[in-house]
Amino acid sequence: MSLTPEQRAEIDDLRSQEHTTLRATVAGMEAHLYKAHEVLDHGFIRVIDYMGDDAAICQAARVSYGKGTKSVQNDAGLIRYLMRHWHSTPFEMCEIKLHVKLPVFVARQWIRHRTANVNEYSARYSILDREFYIPAPEHINAQSVVNNQGRGGVLEGEEAARVLEILKADSNRCYDNYEQMISQDGQDGLARELARMNLPANVYTQWYWKVDLHNLFHFLRLRADAHAQYEIRVYADAICSVVADWVPAAYGAFEDYRLGGATLSGKALDCIKRMLKGEEVTQETSGMSVGEWREFEGVLDRS
Amino acid sequence: MSLTPEQRAEIDDLRSQEHTTLRATVAGMEAHLYKAHEVLDHGFIRVIDYMGDDAAICQAARVSYGKGTKSVQNDAGLIRYLMRHWHSTPFEMCEIKLHVKLPVFVARQWIRHRTANVNEYSARYSILDREFYIPAPEHINAQSVVNNQGRGGVLEGEEAARVLEILKADSNRCYDNYEQMISQDGQDGLARELARMNLPANVYTQWYWKVDLHNLFHFLRLRADAHAQYEIRVYADAICSVVADWVPAAYGAFEDYRLGGATLSGKALDCIKRMLKGEEVTQETSGMSVGEWREFEGVLDRS
Amino acid sequence: MSLTPEQRAEIDDLRSQEHTTLRATVAGMEAHLYKAHEVLDHGFIRVIDYMGDDAAICQAARVSYGKGTKSVQNDAGLIRYLMRHWHSTPFEMCEIKLHVKLPVFVARQWIRHRTANVNEYSARYSILDREFYIPAPEHINAQSVVNNQGRGGVLEGEEAARVLEILKADSNRCYDNYEQMISQDGQDGLARELARMNLPANVYTQWYWKVDLHNLFHFLRLRADAHAQYEIRVYADAICSVVADWVPAAYGAFEDYRLGGATLSGKALDCIKRMLKGEEVTQETSGMSVGEWREFEGVLDRS
Amino acid sequence: MSLTPEQRAEIDDLRSQEHTTLRATVAGMEAHLYKAHEVLDHGFIRVIDYMGDDAAICQAARVSYGKGTKSVQNDAGLIRYLMRHWHSTPFEMCEIKLHVKLPVFVARQWIRHRTANVNEYSARYSILDREFYIPAPEHINAQSVVNNQGRGGVLEGEEAARVLEILKADSNRCYDNYEQMISQDGQDGLARELARMNLPANVYTQWYWKVDLHNLFHFLRLRADAHAQYEIRVYADAICSVVADWVPAAYGAFEDYRLGGATLSGKALDCIKRMLKGEEVTQETSGMSVGEWREFEGVLDRS
Repeated sequence: MSLTPEQRAEIDDLRSQEHTTLRATVAGMEAHLYKAHEVLDHGFIRVIDYMGDDAAICQAARVSYGKGTKSVQNDAGLIRYLMRHWHSTPFEMCEIKLHVKLPVFVARQWIRHRTANVNEYSARYSILDREFYIPAPEHINAQSVVNNQGRGGVLEGEEAARVLEILKADSNRCYDNYEQMISQDGQDGLARELARMNLPANVYTQWYWKVDLHNLFHFLRLRADAHAQYEIRVYADAICSVVADWVPAAYGAFEDYRLGGATLSGKALDCIKRMLKGEEVTQETSGMSVGEWREFEGVLDRS
Repeated sequence: MSLTPEQRAEIDDLRSQEHTTLRATVAGMEAHLYKAHEVLDHGFIRVIDYMGDDAAICQAARVSYGKGTKSVQNDAGLIRYLMRHWHSTPFEMCEIKLHVKLPVFVARQWIRHRTANVNEYSARYSILDREFYIPAPEHINAQSVVNNQGRGGVLEGEEAARVLEILKADSNRCYDNYEQMISQDGQDGLARELARMNLPANVYTQWYWKVDLHNLFHFLRLRADAHAQYEIRVYADAICSVVADWVPAAYGAFEDYRLGGATLSGKALDCIKRMLKGEEVTQETSGMSVGEWREFEGVLDRS
Repeated sequence: MSLTPEQRAEIDDLRSQEHTTLRATVAGMEAHLYKAHEVLDHGFIRVIDYMGDDAAICQAARVSYGKGTKSVQNDAGLIRYLMRHWHSTPFEMCEIKLHVKLPVFVARQWIRHRTANVNEYSARYSILDREFYIPAPEHINAQSVVNNQGRGGVLEGEEAARVLEILKADSNRCYDNYEQMISQDGQDGLARELARMNLPANVYTQWYWKVDLHNLFHFLRLRADAHAQYEIRVYADAICSVVADWVPAAYGAFEDYRLGGATLSGKALDCIKRMLKGEEVTQETSGMSVGEWREFEGVLDRS
Repeated sequence: MSLTPEQRAEIDDLRSQEHTTLRATVAGMEAHLYKAHEVLDHGFIRVIDYMGDDAAICQAARVSYGKGTKSVQNDAGLIRYLMRHWHSTPFEMCEIKLHVKLPVFVARQWIRHRTANVNEYSARYSILDREFYIPAPEHINAQSVVNNQGRGGVLEGEEAARVLEILKADSNRCYDNYEQMISQDGQDGLARELARMNLPANVYTQWYWKVDLHNLFHFLRLRADAHAQYEIRVYADAICSVVADWVPAAYGAFEDYRLGGATLSGKALDCIKRMLKGEEVTQETSGMSVGEWREFEGVLDRS
């Protein structure tokens, strides 16, 4: 795992400093604070700070809807209502700050989520560590033959060994040369901002990432999805388990309506209505394309 | 002042509930939490929650710049450096949530700042209270004769009295009619979403507003400025005094570099260099327009 | 209708100036350019500029997916795929700029959509016209008894007449007093930024609004929905008919997947699967709340 | 240069298709459309589309300020006023879409500008080309000794040769291995989304990037600055020369107020006032830190 003894000592130190506050606190999150949850071979996520809880979502909704929202019996019911009707602003009232260590190729996908705050380790300024993501043997897959953007079966035997060998050897050689180029031992030493370009995309970087709960849910919906690349999905999964401890009612609604739900087109709804009336609907009579029909059958567990 | 006994009791209740937390806390902000700071005749701002402190800004900067930033002796110096060089992301690592009660015409200016989270009281859903902003006599000004977008001297005598009379009478009449239209006493009652259109822009609304420190500083720079409309400036001023207690080092840098500073054009810098060499520069020889020269002289206290 | 002869002449002038360009053009949009589409009693939308077309969406998707996307036979199929899988960035590659004239209470809902560019007429700077939205008799509805945030039946008889009378009289009186306060005839004249606070929320304002197609679809999904307030829905409907002429394939996909589609929760999908197997599912056995079940039956046209 | 014969033919084809439009057009931009401006050894920028011109900025400002803005004699004067006073929304009314080919380490800096629309070539989906940025000998610099985040003098002799040799050899070896891993010749072939992690950060990627003029100016202010890394600055410079042809008045104001201007703190302004009165001000009597004073002297060309 990727924590140095200094980092462990710092975490212990931070966790030993208890303060009093009038702000809302969440016991589940206090238990997570500062601790590193391991992800991949050298990565982690750590909760650095949080704002708000399930009650804060309801508080914001109630400022909007006033006494009217009192008719909803409880917070969990109100939160389900808000999630079902795509209300976004009450969920924006919660905020989380994470410290994440992750490979650069994962960071490049992650940063596409623009509505967040980020401070990344600067390789212009500082020297990167010799830490590279090398997949576990069970995560070295072949290119999918059905999906241009996915993985097929696990590689085996000689081919798998060769891949692992290449990834390790190239990472190490590139890092050796990175070190050699920036070295000021007997030479001037190349600027860091140039030398870093020799490092492959499996090198680890790290950042502080702060995001509100609405945008975090959007991130999790896309990245905890089965179609997301495995290496970012494991980060999303780790964050999901933190969020479940932070805002259990909101996370429960998210699981039901987003992770476990599906958006159906007008055509698909029409097919369902016909099927419920007893009609036998096929792809040919559905009005859907072959691909769309296959996905539709998947949603109904008929494929 | 605009708090009901129920609201006062709720604040007292919230302020009596102390929790322990491992998160960073700021004593100055704990003192502010939930309390209402009065603004205008019925408005207020209240701190509902906050995340981060001066140290959080430095922590984020240091993840970017690594050990290099250790050379800066202290946090205040680092924060001044970040502010001077327009680094925005470390300041985004702090977040504040306010409850604000404000007239609609102020809310309309405020909402133009898009990078923030808002939940506003919904007049589609709920009934607005009979609360209208009526300016104090010393804030009823004439239209400026030099600035299309500003105020001139204070109105006096009969004219001032007439203005106050109109504002009060129209507010009350419009509210009477609003109540009359939505009343279900002996009639169906107009939908709230329609009836609200009868209320003038000095009616009070309220919202929860959550924003990061970088975007808050941008808001304050524009709205605490002497050219901002008085009625929004007083809100910005109240927020400034809260921020000074929250992140004193960052607020100090903001005061020096933004509120107290000025951006000079290449032309203006050129004039200063010539003046420092002893040249007598006039508007005619400055290359600036009349308006720009007047502003330039203002910056140098020469006007 | 709300165009002055000067405005009509300006539109005719703009429409008479034909330029040549190497950019993509859309005949359907050229026909719309600058013309005012009337909305409500004094409002309008006008297309001022546009960027991109259906092909631009595919072009952007193809830069991402490279030759792989060639396997999709045609643009319309690719666009449906992108819409179905919530790909947002290709739709962001199209942009539209509208000139909109609208009542202030509609503008207040509209501006909550933050990812857009806006320049609004400034009542600090300029004098508003005497133009107020007065609903047509068939759009004066009672408060809904089932939905706190909606309208019930149309008001009739004396009550309707009274409402119309109030709206007209209060608008006119407030505007008379607005004019009186800013008048410099025999008095100094109140600053415009203060006087405007006397105007009710049915006064018309106007703005330039520029937005990308992804965010526009998000706006239209919420505002062309049956639950949106009528007075903003008519603007959304007018924009829908423009978008259908601009990007017909994208609009078709939007209609099927967003306007005509529905998002079902995991619970709802489970119920459908049980029902397709012949089980009789009721609210009690569905695991849904009463409200959720009612909405579910609505989606399936069973309510 | 990096265009294939197919790409050249496509550009010629696009440039041969002239359309008529009622939209505003800019002759200078029509001349740029689709053409590739070479940057670095394999990169380019190409204008794909644009919306608006200098007049569109003024048009938007005039909708805000109404007839009042007529007092400004001309568009260039109004644009200078807007720039000087940090008005951002009128500049947001212009939009540009670029096709950019750039090394991944440049893309990683670029993408930090969040308010833009991006579609990047997907290496999950498609195979990257064998194109790597290898600096020209005059751009291989040593690490700066005064600035942790910058370059010192050009490397020379054997050290320079060694660096170039390393960069070329590692790029090629990594690419050879990338090809070998994804090959399906006699093996299953590693998934592309995994194989790409072996490619160093000087590999070229490409994207469509669409941004409004206000946010583009912000990008250019930071990235065309002398402190920006050379490899992104050359892209910013290339874009600057395009923008100068697109919106010459706005670009002129940007050059004077942003690129050529400086923001001075309250302390700095105070020093200038004292100096203009004849006082000899030193770092010790300035109230500034050593670093700040050095920058201040730089602004006044006294260092």
